[in-house]
Amino acid sequence: MSGPQLPQQVTPFQLPCPTGATRLFAVIGYPVAQVQAPALMNRLFVDRRVDAVLVPIEAAPADFPVMIEGLKRIANLDGILVTIPHKFAACDHADHLGEAARLTGSANALRREADGTWAADNFDGVGFVRGLVGAGHNPRGKTVSLVGAGGAGTSIAPALLTHGACLLVLSDVSEKRANQLAARLEAKWPGRVRVASSPAAAESDMLINATPVGLHEDDPLPFDLGAARADAVVADIIMKPAETRLLKAAVARGLRVHPGIHMLSEQIELYRQFFRIP
Amino acid sequence: MSGPQLPQQVTPFQLPCPTGATRLFAVIGYPVAQVQAPALMNRLFVDRRVDAVLVPIEAAPADFPVMIEGLKRIANLDGILVTIPHKFAACDHADHLGEAARLTGSANALRREADGTWAADNFDGVGFVRGLVGAGHNPRGKTVSLVGAGGAGTSIAPALLTHGACLLVLSDVSEKRANQLAARLEAKWPGRVRVASSPAAAESDMLINATPVGLHEDDPLPFDLGAARADAVVADIIMKPAETRLLKAAVARGLRVHPGIHMLSEQIELYRQFFRIP
Repeated sequence: MSGPQLPQQVTPFQLPCPTGATRLFAVIGYPVAQVQAPALMNRLFVDRRVDAVLVPIEAAPADFPVMIEGLKRIANLDGILVTIPHKFAACDHADHLGEAARLTGSANALRREADGTWAADNFDGVGFVRGLVGAGHNPRGKTVSLVGAGGAGTSIAPALLTHGACLLVLSDVSEKRANQLAARLEAKWPGRVRVASSPAAAESDMLINATPVGLHEDDPLPFDLGAARADAVVADIIMKPAETRLLKAAVARGLRVHPGIHMLSEQIELYRQFFRIP
Repeated sequence: MSGPQLPQQVTPFQLPCPTGATRLFAVIGYPVAQVQAPALMNRLFVDRRVDAVLVPIEAAPADFPVMIEGLKRIANLDGILVTIPHKFAACDHADHLGEAARLTGSANALRREADGTWAADNFDGVGFVRGLVGAGHNPRGKTVSLVGAGGAGTSIAPALLTHGACLLVLSDVSEKRANQLAARLEAKWPGRVRVASSPAAAESDMLINATPVGLHEDDPLPFDLGAARADAVVADIIMKPAETRLLKAAVARGLRVHPGIHMLSEQIELYRQFFRIP
């Protein structure tokens, strides 16, 4: 996306009715009504003629441990996607962690291995950066303000640094959480991470919302756009609504925007490989 | 079905791709590939424009308790169907039992109540008898041989007696199991139940297979048709294959047959009411 433009919508479609032989995948969240994974993953299954269906699962944090251990006993369930707020907890239920899951302490995908154990990894960060690059917003050599040091921010931050962002300015409502993430990143990328109480708008080539603020219609803006540079890119990780208040405000100011759906749509190919879908 | 005729097949169809807001239902079995509930229940959801999907779940008996307790924590899962071999175990995971579930000690449907507890009932028996009556094979005043005193037989036997079968001849590979079921039925319907090592073919108006024998292509016949009367009806509870070896053999002898799909298709309306689907 090279200029102001509002985000794409996923078009509804039909899929073959499941039979008793259909393989299962699930996406777990709380809430879950806003997730876009069912449309994207089921589209993949239809296109590739795989007899599988991905369904949404809503589970409160207190119910998550019993619920996911139950899912792991389902013999025809091959994979699980995990979204807010369960990505950290998901790691506790995997037997093997991929590199991004180890680095972030969080997972957004689990798969059953041939021996019955479960492997987990986290594709949020690499998916998000692939989305930026694909849309012409390469973070290499750029100053990036990242708001939110929770599940998504924790994944996106190291991916931005890996991909060459020269300075990352982290902020979070919990300063402690921002400092903890910054300390871990500093150990690997010294001098390239700073914590601030709000985005460094005047310096930033890119301003990213990695908080859930914007999921609800009456949410405030996650950060102020007043000082943003005219050439800044404003990105949101929220997928529903596709047009968040933040993105609308950015478009109104003539800024370039990058909607949340890219992070997920770029991950579909990564999920496909991870789940070994033909 | 009034004369020799082979069973109907469920026609494949499409349904809208689930979204994050879709409600879930499940059918649990082991194996599960043969179940027909996904086609029938999803047809119901499509016809009634209910945003819900029913998916198959395979779980081994050792995994069933952890698996079903996990399912019960899924906030957007409204109902569970249970099939072989989990119908007895299912009762242990419900807070309230309907009359047929209490009488048979087994359940094939569980629903979440408004207060978060789970209610269970068993519609196999009444579904099977409704199917017989609908096909013109009313068991009232008839002698019926029922082979299999497991989950299905335990449900079908009291429904046949409730509906006026005058004599029920029970057989099972486990004579102990047949005797136990007979003793419970005798307490309520004295003089109308007999246990035998094989069906009383020469006396029976109706011969029913309520065992899993016939699920696999190389299974033997569940009982011998040699002594069956020319006016006998031969019924099978197996749904897949739709044309079991038993039914083919009965058709070959010119006997009337009654395929397994009726027991399920007659239950769809009962499930609809139980699950409070509009």
